[in-house]
Amino acid sequence: MKKTSTRLADGRELIYYDSRDDAVRSAEDLRPLPHTETLSELRHDPVLDEWVVVAAHRQGRTYHPPADECPLCPSRDGRLSEIPESDYEVVVFENRFPSLAAHPHPEEVRAAPPNAIRPAAGRCEVVCFTSDHDASFADLSPRRVGTVLEAWTDRTAELSTLPDVEQVFCFENRGVEIGVTLEHPHGQIYAYPFVTPRTERMIATAVAHRAGTGRNLFEDQLEAERRDGERIVVAGEHWTAFVPFAAHWPYEVHVYPHRRVGDLLALDDAEREEFTHLYLDLLQRFDLLFTPHEAVDAVNSTPHRTPYIAAWHQAPVRRGPGGVEGAEELALHMELFTIRRTVGKLKFLAGSESGMDVFINDVAPEHAARRLREVKA
Amino acid sequence: MKKTSTRLADGRELIYYDSRDDAVRSAEDLRPLPHTETLSELRHDPVLDEWVVVAAHRQGRTYHPPADECPLCPSRDGRLSEIPESDYEVVVFENRFPSLAAHPHPEEVRAAPPNAIRPAAGRCEVVCFTSDHDASFADLSPRRVGTVLEAWTDRTAELSTLPDVEQVFCFENRGVEIGVTLEHPHGQIYAYPFVTPRTERMIATAVAHRAGTGRNLFEDQLEAERRDGERIVVAGEHWTAFVPFAAHWPYEVHVYPHRRVGDLLALDDAEREEFTHLYLDLLQRFDLLFTPHEAVDAVNSTPHRTPYIAAWHQAPVRRGPGGVEGAEELALHMELFTIRRTVGKLKFLAGSESGMDVFINDVAPEHAARRLREVKA
Repeated sequence: MKKTSTRLADGRELIYYDSRDDAVRSAEDLRPLPHTETLSELRHDPVLDEWVVVAAHRQGRTYHPPADECPLCPSRDGRLSEIPESDYEVVVFENRFPSLAAHPHPEEVRAAPPNAIRPAAGRCEVVCFTSDHDASFADLSPRRVGTVLEAWTDRTAELSTLPDVEQVFCFENRGVEIGVTLEHPHGQIYAYPFVTPRTERMIATAVAHRAGTGRNLFEDQLEAERRDGERIVVAGEHWTAFVPFAAHWPYEVHVYPHRRVGDLLALDDAEREEFTHLYLDLLQRFDLLFTPHEAVDAVNSTPHRTPYIAAWHQAPVRRGPGGVEGAEELALHMELFTIRRTVGKLKFLAGSESGMDVFINDVAPEHAARRLREVKA
Repeated sequence: MKKTSTRLADGRELIYYDSRDDAVRSAEDLRPLPHTETLSELRHDPVLDEWVVVAAHRQGRTYHPPADECPLCPSRDGRLSEIPESDYEVVVFENRFPSLAAHPHPEEVRAAPPNAIRPAAGRCEVVCFTSDHDASFADLSPRRVGTVLEAWTDRTAELSTLPDVEQVFCFENRGVEIGVTLEHPHGQIYAYPFVTPRTERMIATAVAHRAGTGRNLFEDQLEAERRDGERIVVAGEHWTAFVPFAAHWPYEVHVYPHRRVGDLLALDDAEREEFTHLYLDLLQRFDLLFTPHEAVDAVNSTPHRTPYIAAWHQAPVRRGPGGVEGAEELALHMELFTIRRTVGKLKFLAGSESGMDVFINDVAPEHAARRLREVKA
């Protein structure tokens, strides 16, 4: 694997990740790109005790450009994009319209207690999985998934060293149904300047579980699912993917390595290798969920593309003595879920979910797991 | 105000709320309606420590019926609906496809620790605001809003007496964009058999605030907003509506009575009276947010309808000694927000929100408040 770091015309970092050690990435960004200021701020919600990112400058961001103006395609045929090279494997760069930035300049806002405000430090990056505009993650080769995994791992390592960063979050939003504004296959990385509310909650329950049982919560959950088996979708030697017992979304799969680790950096070669195959298998099953049978059987048909969110849960950056209490309890895993509940129908977060955080799931987890097992059988 | 309780053909309760004391509501439900079983269950998510409602039987619920088959219109012209009378003011009835029910019969599912399961007890009700299919809440008369408020209050009182109910939640989802499957103007009431995660969190922060300051968190927040003034949208003698400092949604307004109370039952007549006018004003502003100027100026034009969620936050049922610790800290208020961020664009909950509970808000709260003030000036 070769990593080549470079700068775009406005000073943002861009990094190529290549599977070949002899890859040469020397093209320069020739665009007359103005330096953009990030006017983001973190506001503290005193009632929910959580930070909200207010990023008012982002309303003007690129929104569903025509395919021939895609900023994530390589620069070719006289058209200049965000990626200077005429081709690439995997590329990561700082978002031009970031919610979080190294040196944000917040607008001046009065904040009297119990309110509080601070600059939205951190970093937002875009990860392009392939130069092929029309592909999707599920179309990648296992080798390419390996390179993406290397990129996620490297970014986690690098971003963890930034002064303000407390947690690194690698994720993919896929599908217009989920609000994706660029079709080109890509994911994102948020380096947050705080431990996120979700992770805080997971750590708190894991700490309580440890106090009550002496054991790790995530290991107990994985063991219970492996013993029961009814909700397992795919399993290998090193990983198991299952629909959790109390799934919040119609089709939701959690993917855990059998060996508990805190982050992507700790995965060994065998775990990495198996993940590439297992994850592709899983994504292909997702795409078959809502594909009509005729389409699956037809020659050369492409399956429908299921909208999904894929989220890597990693432990906070500061662990151990002096770090976030209980951070070492958190187990690296991926949560993959779709907002589609059946053909043509989406699961909306309405009053109960958005108002009270109570999810209503119309699909029994055992049914979801069975469907996901059968769909590719 | 007159209240008439009756039963539908399958045994569900239906209650008419009339502003006239001499209203007669004696029509019977003549439909051959089979008794439906509720196969709901509560599953405990051990990692997030919260209950999820699994209601697999609801996939078959009524979904965007044609207007002439609307189950919420009165029964007229030989067509029988959920409401036996040929007209009504406000009517409340038990949902035919409830997520929570008095005697649910869960399917048999194995639950090994750390997982847990129990029947989804509780109750789900539908509140019809008017018999006019094409109206919306913002079109109601102040007097009718008063009747709706009476209905919400009465339901809170009644449902609080049910054996399993821990919290009563009155809310309205409006707009297909939010997943509303019936156009007829209506809201819902969920009587949960647990204190919801959102309310638990609010109580926890309020308890911590009390410990640190000796004061009530909600009173301090309201006072800070009233003193600052920049985010106030409308204010009366008894209520203030403001965009919170750390708003999560593009346009989000919280409506608080100046006198802190725990639930709707504690509101006095003057507070009720003022609320009806202030809330209508607010909803009308919401509908003007994304209406093009031409449409507003045109004669007889109807404003665009903004999708929204309106959520009443009330303290848990069990307060005081032996009840939920700190429950008396929670202040009754309404949270009203739209998922629309600008004309033609919605705010989606993608990776950061759905994966990590970190909201990115593209609209500055001060801007949102200014817009809401100006739109009806």
